[in-house]
Amino acid sequence: MSNKAVSYAGPGKVEVVDIPYPEFELKDGPGVNPANVGRKVDHGVILKVVSTNICGSDQHMVRGRTTAPEGLVLGHEITGEVVEVGRDVEFIKKGDLVSVPFNIACGRCRNCKERKTGICLNVNPDRPGSAYGYVDMGGWVGGQAEYVLVPYADWNLLKFPDKDQALEKILDLTMLSDIFPTGFHGAVSAGVGVGSTVYVAGAGPVGLAAATSAHLLGAAVVIVGDLVEDRLAKARSFGCETVDVSKGDPKDQIEQILGVPEVDCGVDAVGFEARGHGDNAQTEAPATVLNSLMDITMAGGSLGIPGLYVTGDPGAAEPAAREGSLSLRFGLGFAKSHVFVTGQCPVMKYHRGLMQAILHDKVSIAKNVNATAVSLDEAPKAYADFDAGAAKKFVLDPHGMVKAA
Amino acid sequence: MSNKAVSYAGPGKVEVVDIPYPEFELKDGPGVNPANVGRKVDHGVILKVVSTNICGSDQHMVRGRTTAPEGLVLGHEITGEVVEVGRDVEFIKKGDLVSVPFNIACGRCRNCKERKTGICLNVNPDRPGSAYGYVDMGGWVGGQAEYVLVPYADWNLLKFPDKDQALEKILDLTMLSDIFPTGFHGAVSAGVGVGSTVYVAGAGPVGLAAATSAHLLGAAVVIVGDLVEDRLAKARSFGCETVDVSKGDPKDQIEQILGVPEVDCGVDAVGFEARGHGDNAQTEAPATVLNSLMDITMAGGSLGIPGLYVTGDPGAAEPAAREGSLSLRFGLGFAKSHVFVTGQCPVMKYHRGLMQAILHDKVSIAKNVNATAVSLDEAPKAYADFDAGAAKKFVLDPHGMVKAA
Amino acid sequence: MSNKAVSYAGPGKVEVVDIPYPEFELKDGPGVNPANVGRKVDHGVILKVVSTNICGSDQHMVRGRTTAPEGLVLGHEITGEVVEVGRDVEFIKKGDLVSVPFNIACGRCRNCKERKTGICLNVNPDRPGSAYGYVDMGGWVGGQAEYVLVPYADWNLLKFPDKDQALEKILDLTMLSDIFPTGFHGAVSAGVGVGSTVYVAGAGPVGLAAATSAHLLGAAVVIVGDLVEDRLAKARSFGCETVDVSKGDPKDQIEQILGVPEVDCGVDAVGFEARGHGDNAQTEAPATVLNSLMDITMAGGSLGIPGLYVTGDPGAAEPAAREGSLSLRFGLGFAKSHVFVTGQCPVMKYHRGLMQAILHDKVSIAKNVNATAVSLDEAPKAYADFDAGAAKKFVLDPHGMVKAA
Amino acid sequence: MSNKAVSYAGPGKVEVVDIPYPEFELKDGPGVNPANVGRKVDHGVILKVVSTNICGSDQHMVRGRTTAPEGLVLGHEITGEVVEVGRDVEFIKKGDLVSVPFNIACGRCRNCKERKTGICLNVNPDRPGSAYGYVDMGGWVGGQAEYVLVPYADWNLLKFPDKDQALEKILDLTMLSDIFPTGFHGAVSAGVGVGSTVYVAGAGPVGLAAATSAHLLGAAVVIVGDLVEDRLAKARSFGCETVDVSKGDPKDQIEQILGVPEVDCGVDAVGFEARGHGDNAQTEAPATVLNSLMDITMAGGSLGIPGLYVTGDPGAAEPAAREGSLSLRFGLGFAKSHVFVTGQCPVMKYHRGLMQAILHDKVSIAKNVNATAVSLDEAPKAYADFDAGAAKKFVLDPHGMVKAA
Repeated sequence: MSNKAVSYAGPGKVEVVDIPYPEFELKDGPGVNPANVGRKVDHGVILKVVSTNICGSDQHMVRGRTTAPEGLVLGHEITGEVVEVGRDVEFIKKGDLVSVPFNIACGRCRNCKERKTGICLNVNPDRPGSAYGYVDMGGWVGGQAEYVLVPYADWNLLKFPDKDQALEKILDLTMLSDIFPTGFHGAVSAGVGVGSTVYVAGAGPVGLAAATSAHLLGAAVVIVGDLVEDRLAKARSFGCETVDVSKGDPKDQIEQILGVPEVDCGVDAVGFEARGHGDNAQTEAPATVLNSLMDITMAGGSLGIPGLYVTGDPGAAEPAAREGSLSLRFGLGFAKSHVFVTGQCPVMKYHRGLMQAILHDKVSIAKNVNATAVSLDEAPKAYADFDAGAAKKFVLDPHGMVKAA
Repeated sequence: MSNKAVSYAGPGKVEVVDIPYPEFELKDGPGVNPANVGRKVDHGVILKVVSTNICGSDQHMVRGRTTAPEGLVLGHEITGEVVEVGRDVEFIKKGDLVSVPFNIACGRCRNCKERKTGICLNVNPDRPGSAYGYVDMGGWVGGQAEYVLVPYADWNLLKFPDKDQALEKILDLTMLSDIFPTGFHGAVSAGVGVGSTVYVAGAGPVGLAAATSAHLLGAAVVIVGDLVEDRLAKARSFGCETVDVSKGDPKDQIEQILGVPEVDCGVDAVGFEARGHGDNAQTEAPATVLNSLMDITMAGGSLGIPGLYVTGDPGAAEPAAREGSLSLRFGLGFAKSHVFVTGQCPVMKYHRGLMQAILHDKVSIAKNVNATAVSLDEAPKAYADFDAGAAKKFVLDPHGMVKAA
Repeated sequence: MSNKAVSYAGPGKVEVVDIPYPEFELKDGPGVNPANVGRKVDHGVILKVVSTNICGSDQHMVRGRTTAPEGLVLGHEITGEVVEVGRDVEFIKKGDLVSVPFNIACGRCRNCKERKTGICLNVNPDRPGSAYGYVDMGGWVGGQAEYVLVPYADWNLLKFPDKDQALEKILDLTMLSDIFPTGFHGAVSAGVGVGSTVYVAGAGPVGLAAATSAHLLGAAVVIVGDLVEDRLAKARSFGCETVDVSKGDPKDQIEQILGVPEVDCGVDAVGFEARGHGDNAQTEAPATVLNSLMDITMAGGSLGIPGLYVTGDPGAAEPAAREGSLSLRFGLGFAKSHVFVTGQCPVMKYHRGLMQAILHDKVSIAKNVNATAVSLDEAPKAYADFDAGAAKKFVLDPHGMVKAA
Repeated sequence: MSNKAVSYAGPGKVEVVDIPYPEFELKDGPGVNPANVGRKVDHGVILKVVSTNICGSDQHMVRGRTTAPEGLVLGHEITGEVVEVGRDVEFIKKGDLVSVPFNIACGRCRNCKERKTGICLNVNPDRPGSAYGYVDMGGWVGGQAEYVLVPYADWNLLKFPDKDQALEKILDLTMLSDIFPTGFHGAVSAGVGVGSTVYVAGAGPVGLAAATSAHLLGAAVVIVGDLVEDRLAKARSFGCETVDVSKGDPKDQIEQILGVPEVDCGVDAVGFEARGHGDNAQTEAPATVLNSLMDITMAGGSLGIPGLYVTGDPGAAEPAAREGSLSLRFGLGFAKSHVFVTGQCPVMKYHRGLMQAILHDKVSIAKNVNATAVSLDEAPKAYADFDAGAAKKFVLDPHGMVKAA
């Protein structure tokens, strides 16, 4: 069977290519870790991909900021219909419509048993944690494709209880594979609860998902900061206050909104490609967001950090940043007894509850992040638009099922 | 200065009487524990009572189900304006508009230091925990009055940041003294989170507050059960599903709503004066609610129990119940690994966050519980109406300030 | 291959019988749920049983207090060496020495994913939760045998890092399958921490394990109560204070020890076959322990309840108790804001940490519970001795490997 | 009455001086914040100081690494006997023997009510959090003196239940004012539990207290790293493994001890005056410890950071460090999903439990940190010895009561 997919084709470039239809084995290919080549996946299923989203972290690779090899098939935000079931799968059935957590997990190691599925010990020979279609993550083939293999299916997959109902809400449910749980994890890690005041740095899809989550968790005031006015407008559309960091330090603008220059909870939804504030808004300044959050988060508060920081960034402006080092005002954080919570979101901790919230109309994540479906062939253009700052979350629709729904 | 107040006048009867204007000392009077007589309260303030609500637990006394003495001044749900400040009060100031947690706490004992203000060790000579205007609680004079003394003011009081804004929302904010935190505590204790399905037994004010709280915490489905159709209609008015327990066991009705006969989280907002389900709906059956919750709460779930259970109930039908013993299907609870969380809500843990949610329009607690302001003189009628099952939360308005706002 | 096993042979009687050597399928047999007959277990392993302990809950069956069918193979406390590996097992290898949690769990359902392995949804067709060799638990064959089948091996099993070292400490490590985690769970659920005062009701093996755990968690004072002097002596041997409940209410004795009549934390390691205190010490009184714990646990404390309570007890003295109902002083618990934590211990949450504590000589659980190895053939006598109140924890040694070590 | 005290007399110098006997008011003096001058302290008590310890953070001032003014009276680790009671103190009585948490807290602000007493909002006009005898902390007079004023006595003080028993254990109990809770907080923040493997960077008193705490919490293996052999020997004396960081990166030495190069939990008991490892052991390298902990703490682990980091360090080698900025390998921490817990220990959360552990002989903190009592007059020599790396915790004994006990 044919299998079209989106692959990385060198800095600034993605293309739609034909790749092999998946088998229950991890074959050699661009970016596949040698230790994973030939790995049997009888615990897996093959999905017909119903929707698969473009993520900000895909862009890090496409911009050439990583060591991703050309030909790498992209895509770790996957929702699909089960079309084949490995012999060892017991509870997931052919025909099930399922959400795939972006972090691949075995369900059998110490970390998985402790719900830390973002750092599974058995899926990536290099280090704890893995994802589909991602550099240095073991080589699991990406899901921006017509079909994809998902290992450890009984463990990883979240089945939607009613397929027809789910297809109607597919633009919301497709966010369960990554950004909605990731934003939610950021908010939870920052200690957001009923009545909190929250600052979310970054109004990209993860930032908007964090802001949506903060509202869902009962926050009193959610303030979102960004440089891009379109994104800020999106945040305002669902009840957030906004701060334009190109106009200066967020602290003053926060004081105008709240009457005090501090919030209870801070979320970093930007990560290592941060730019400066105010006059430095065009310059890359990777420690800006964290240092700013220490300044504006009250003493005793927590910083939820879903924004990605990397161990190596060959494209960084500063030598230290190339090794993932940042100049942090740690003394300030210490004086304020801050807690810093980092790392990939363990999606499985949250996706079931968030699905329930979507299915019962408690939240409109698709609208809030401006989910926009396009065909697989339109992927290159979608990547380019997203890179240019479009206030959209692009959802690839390989089989036209999203459009039909 | 004159000080009108509502006092208990024997089974089924309350009256409005003149009582002394408070001083910074706890004087002898009906229900005052001898060990508390003459206690100095320089750490206290005197409040002009702006609003003070009638509570279901006041009714236990008024119905003659307790040993409350005649003449006891009622009222533990108090919001007021500071008119006099004890010499040892440092941060609360004259003119502040404040919410008073119903549980009196010293802020200096082991339990208060651990945030367990519902069981303060220093305010009630008989046992841990105290409240204003309540039998066997030390004898602190009730707040259904024009003026009231509040001890340990710096510790207990929650000051509203903007007085004018607060007066505009006074019907919501008045619920911070008891039922909103109490319902919230029930929901939190039951483990309610984003995406939960929840059953709240009882659609009185605490039940409606628990249901409101469950929504605020992000629950996917909130089901409320009661015998009184007017109360159920109120629950439906803010997005709850409902179950009429006079029509039979809630389990079947829950299954019709959810497709499964179980919820994630159960809240008991009824307590010891429970009646049976279905054909037994007119008979008092104090263990009904707890046994039912064990049946309908999924294995691994928690039961939040804000509903009051008492150590002695002279008016109970059964001898065991007179001593506060219930025949519980504990084996069922054990088989399902249930956790039971009991006790008075430690209001101070929650009131600040809930205030923020009210002030920022995240929640409409007054509307949801049908807050209805009446004058102090109308208190006897309000008690009677509430006892008859009126789907209202009565707010006494001693100085006409609620009406003015 | 031959396979000798211990089976229930009617009230008061166990015998050693020959049963079939396990296959990777659950076959029909005494007590096997029809819905489980023929279930494929390619995710399982076959263990050569190295040690398998007799548990107090085995006795409930042997005493005829349950509906266990004759011929039921007993034993849910299993440690063994992997001799055959199902085709779907990926990480557990032939030759591994492993501890088996008594609660069988699939590692693929909602509850397992939330670490609630005591109430797995996929292993027992009747209700959440399962165990080997136990009535109404699905029919998984017991492990008091030479060989046993363990399903979902990658998920369930805890591998000892060094086989030789483990064999040297096998009498300690064998307690990881049930009583050590169960006692630990009781202590943790009761809120035991550094500096706590703790009362453990019951000095059987689970009670002694709970007391051991309380010490390991840093408790300041651990008091153990029982009727049997030999068991109390065992508790004193590792630093516990003791209370002889045949001599009266524990409250007074606790006051003599602590100066106050209350402890911070209460653990019920007795369960539904409790007897009364003082003069009632010979009478079965199933609510005694829970009511006593409410009396002696301080306000704000938690009750950890590892002791078994059942949904039906055909042999109970009282009709209510036959249906698992108890007359509890719930009003007292409520007045003291108690939290009640019930249910089977989710062993997987604790066994790894406890194994580390054993391997690094932080705890001597075998000595504290008086672990006593006997051959499989001696099982009937061991059952009889244990039933007679022997202060021993019997460890069956089917292959003489414990003795050799 | 006379009142001798230890005061800072310029870089490298302390002297014993006469200061005024305390009154219930904060008077002007070296380092007193103008906004605090004249502050009434009727909620306070005056203590006869029984013991008061020299702390590593005192040394930061004495070394001239801060802006501390000459004449500042030092000392924030205080245990004493109440000799005068302010008029607003209700529960602490004259004659009580009490431990004083080093962090001063009001018990009346939002943070205190949330148990965050390390960042009380009402005691330091400059920012949240305060301490006795410390630069930029509001100006509360230090307790290395014969007598000291303690504000908010009912809230802050921990009374020892039995005075005579307490005096016998005074060298242990004196550690409750700071280093024992601080080390314990580090261990708790690092997630130490039963069975953990732990690395504690630094074998000064706080590091040894953290290691002691890790044992008390049930850790399986506690490894302590330092440059000073005497300190490492101390750690070994109570069951720790040790790593000499002057001999190279701790990672390799940890692997030799554990078989793996990582621990479950990391504690930074060094702070901003860290030196490098191996060949760089003589060079100040403030980010060394944190970067090393990210390397050796397993993915998913937490870093407890009781070691002090400051907002400004005039004496730092690097310009960034002068502003409290450190070059951290944050990308590595993120890849490993680390959590960083910073800040002053909120002593009141822990001191009661630790007191119980001491009084019931569960822990020997005095022995483990080598508590050494000297007279007040010997303070200058003790400061010098401690600065030279003496493996001792100096306890000043102003009234000879420690020696007598």
